[in-house]
Amino acid sequence: MNIPSLSDIKQAQQRIAPYAHQTPVLQSTQINKRVGGNIYFKCENFQKGGSFKFRGACNTIFSLSREQQSKGVATHSSGNHAQALALAAKIKGIPAFVVMPENAPKVKVKAVKSYGAEVTFCEPTLIARETELEKVVERTGAHVVHPYNDKRIVTGQATAAMELMAEIPDLDIIITPVGGGGLLSGTALAAKFTNPDINVIGAEPEEADDAYRSFKSGELIPVKDPNTIADGLKTSLGNIPFAIIQNQVDDIATVSEDSIIAAMRFVWERMKIIIEPSSAVPVAALFEGKAETKNKRIGIILSGGNVDLEKLPWMK
Amino acid sequence: MNIPSLSDIKQAQQRIAPYAHQTPVLQSTQINKRVGGNIYFKCENFQKGGSFKFRGACNTIFSLSREQQSKGVATHSSGNHAQALALAAKIKGIPAFVVMPENAPKVKVKAVKSYGAEVTFCEPTLIARETELEKVVERTGAHVVHPYNDKRIVTGQATAAMELMAEIPDLDIIITPVGGGGLLSGTALAAKFTNPDINVIGAEPEEADDAYRSFKSGELIPVKDPNTIADGLKTSLGNIPFAIIQNQVDDIATVSEDSIIAAMRFVWERMKIIIEPSSAVPVAALFEGKAETKNKRIGIILSGGNVDLEKLPWMK
Repeated sequence: MNIPSLSDIKQAQQRIAPYAHQTPVLQSTQINKRVGGNIYFKCENFQKGGSFKFRGACNTIFSLSREQQSKGVATHSSGNHAQALALAAKIKGIPAFVVMPENAPKVKVKAVKSYGAEVTFCEPTLIARETELEKVVERTGAHVVHPYNDKRIVTGQATAAMELMAEIPDLDIIITPVGGGGLLSGTALAAKFTNPDINVIGAEPEEADDAYRSFKSGELIPVKDPNTIADGLKTSLGNIPFAIIQNQVDDIATVSEDSIIAAMRFVWERMKIIIEPSSAVPVAALFEGKAETKNKRIGIILSGGNVDLEKLPWMK
Repeated sequence: MNIPSLSDIKQAQQRIAPYAHQTPVLQSTQINKRVGGNIYFKCENFQKGGSFKFRGACNTIFSLSREQQSKGVATHSSGNHAQALALAAKIKGIPAFVVMPENAPKVKVKAVKSYGAEVTFCEPTLIARETELEKVVERTGAHVVHPYNDKRIVTGQATAAMELMAEIPDLDIIITPVGGGGLLSGTALAAKFTNPDINVIGAEPEEADDAYRSFKSGELIPVKDPNTIADGLKTSLGNIPFAIIQNQVDDIATVSEDSIIAAMRFVWERMKIIIEPSSAVPVAALFEGKAETKNKRIGIILSGGNVDLEKLPWMK
């Protein structure tokens, strides 16, 4: 059974509590004024490894048997999951093997290596990444940890919303970005376990709108060569998150690239916190009027803060 | 008598409480590890107007008589004090008149105007600024609010340290940046009222080391044409803060430009919060080993987060 129960999520909370940050919830007078509601930002950009991904990685690694742990963990990723898995493995004291495309940003490669993971490079195609990962697993016997299409990952990601709902119990709406679907599906479960009346919305770039199209059609439609600044949301929805999203999510909103960049800059300038473009997607949805905000209490999970500080999206 | 008492500071706390944010105190595992101590960051970069300056401006405006308030307030400033005063005046519903040098960053002019203040431009010299301010006051009868050389301002700035000391009562050391001296002198008073054994340190750029030289020589030595990235710290120490600093501060540490930029970037990358160069100066002092950190509990006031996001100091 691939759908986490409330007790699974509570176990995950206990499992990761000694290692993950209970991130703060911030508010912005200026954003509240702009949208006419009360917005609560759960700051997973302050999470270890710089994103919520640490929760799922940590939950997965710490629930492996000692024998599984002994051979280490492996994944292919160019992004936040790679960092999260490498960091969680380091904390547990086990090896991590990460396959990264040779065009991955140097700053991300550096971060993964700084956590002690072994990095193998491959061509920047899904086929090459999967083939290389198979080779790594054959050589090492490492346990593969998928970035989102895995019940243990979804369960771990659900813990962010559990914390938010405990701190701000009377939310009307909760919004997260949606890429592979791990965060959105986990959030939807946690939110509805706590309050069945809450509205759960996924926010997605128009340029990578596979979750939107899948949600509306009822069939999993993968995205092809998406061209969005929100690099964390380029992946296609996984079938495990999708099954949960179909049942538990109330709507998917899409936003333009321009409004993602404008929302990201607004948060940097007014809230003085660093969020990556993917985190700006739910904020853009509010600013575009894609959710009812008037007098509503809305939780937003700011998914991460890993940005190349040499190259910001509003610079030419 | 120009030295605020504990009761002055407590009154200021009550006066500004309905308007100023009680800013959060954050920690960073990575910074703690790097320096071998526990560092507590009081996030005045999240304060209204983007810096601690709102505290002093608010305290001053809200302690004026109704008659004084009716004619508004005036100042000359190219920086955070201008924004803070304009915002506090807007909240009180009184006019604000700000003299700014014609080369002031557009983003700062825009911010001051967005709070409804009337901006007058002048040549970028101290003489021109003071002359223009006199003209404005003659015309309007507005009450002049100096950015730091004023007991009411020092009293207001002291409230940040009061909050920090209440939240983290057993600090060994507290460090703030020092420019005109309003924040450092207020912090020193608040810290020693609460715990006479605490060490209070001011941190200053080598390129604008007038506080260091004044502190060591016992005579107020103004800085001349300072060339530092920490634009908030270019002003010379005022005589009112200096008198307090001489009695209450334990040391002044100076740091290089390179280490200010490196510390600023470290905080952005690891803590995912936006601080301006002036705020990075105390962090640079830690990283340069200018304060004992081993097993110490150290409070740092991150003074502000107003940065031109088009032009970051680590970019060529």
